[in-house]
Amino acid sequence: MEIKQEQKVSGERIYSGNILNLNKDQVEFSNGLTSVREVVEHSGGVSVLAENEEGKVLLIKQYRYPVDEVIYEIPAGKLEIGEDLEECAARELREETGYQAEKFTELYKFYPTPGYSTECIYIFQAEKLSYVGRELEEGEYIEVVPKSKAELKELFKNGELKDSKTLISVMHYLGDL
Amino acid sequence: MEIKQEQKVSGERIYSGNILNLNKDQVEFSNGLTSVREVVEHSGGVSVLAENEEGKVLLIKQYRYPVDEVIYEIPAGKLEIGEDLEECAARELREETGYQAEKFTELYKFYPTPGYSTECIYIFQAEKLSYVGRELEEGEYIEVVPKSKAELKELFKNGELKDSKTLISVMHYLGDL
Repeated sequence: MEIKQEQKVSGERIYSGNILNLNKDQVEFSNGLTSVREVVEHSGGVSVLAENEEGKVLLIKQYRYPVDEVIYEIPAGKLEIGEDLEECAARELREETGYQAEKFTELYKFYPTPGYSTECIYIFQAEKLSYVGRELEEGEYIEVVPKSKAELKELFKNGELKDSKTLISVMHYLGDL
Repeated sequence: MEIKQEQKVSGERIYSGNILNLNKDQVEFSNGLTSVREVVEHSGGVSVLAENEEGKVLLIKQYRYPVDEVIYEIPAGKLEIGEDLEECAARELREETGYQAEKFTELYKFYPTPGYSTECIYIFQAEKLSYVGRELEEGEYIEVVPKSKAELKELFKNGELKDSKTLISVMHYLGDL
């Protein structure tokens, strides 16, 4: 079966914001049918799987307004337009946890919600960490919670890892993949 | 350190759509600072990790307009408001792959992008499958591609699994977690 693609016929910018824009596009399929696509434009995110000098993975706990919950995440931030991926990884790791790393390696690149968002999230592994001090942005309230492998396994098994990038990173860390 | 939560001060509905709504809320932190939260409201999604009678996992290939790419995914769909999770899983599996399952078990519940979306995605495991015929919705162009464990490992290693729910499901399937 052919995978039919769709072409944009027209588009409307609904909203231009700080962290996202919203577009409403008309698309046409190859059979002539048309449909509407509601698309969140997001510049992408970079996240970091980092083990500190004690062999613990740096998780953070943060209140997330959209889901009204304090959840565990790996350090992460929004990619500035044109920003280098590794620079973004280093900046967010430093700001949120206070650690610098000597080496960053890209592990994963994924779309959290390809049905309605352009966002792509990168996961980097950070190695050879040293503590240099945190630099939180104003309005960021973040608790750093280093977790051992055994503790991560517990959190995973108990369904306490609810964020996509964090779940993928911890499954990578725990598994033999 | 206390994890400071934020309270909604006021809210504005920017857009009400077919698959999502967009709100712009003013929030206040406990220290009196205020900020803006752009929040995509989404009713949630249910996805299905299903092995067919030949021991192959049912992946689908689908063009995703927001990321302008044909990607692999597990069968999934949007939760209707008030809909039972298992019913949604069964419906989407049937519509997209033509399979019925005797048993559904919840494996994961995660937030793809808790920073700006309310969406929660559930992953169910479907067991004891039988083929009864597909029922695609109008405008759905989906190719079903059953994959063996070895094939999934290849796709995973080559970075060809780019969708969050699919990556998590395949890591679960391949790993010993």
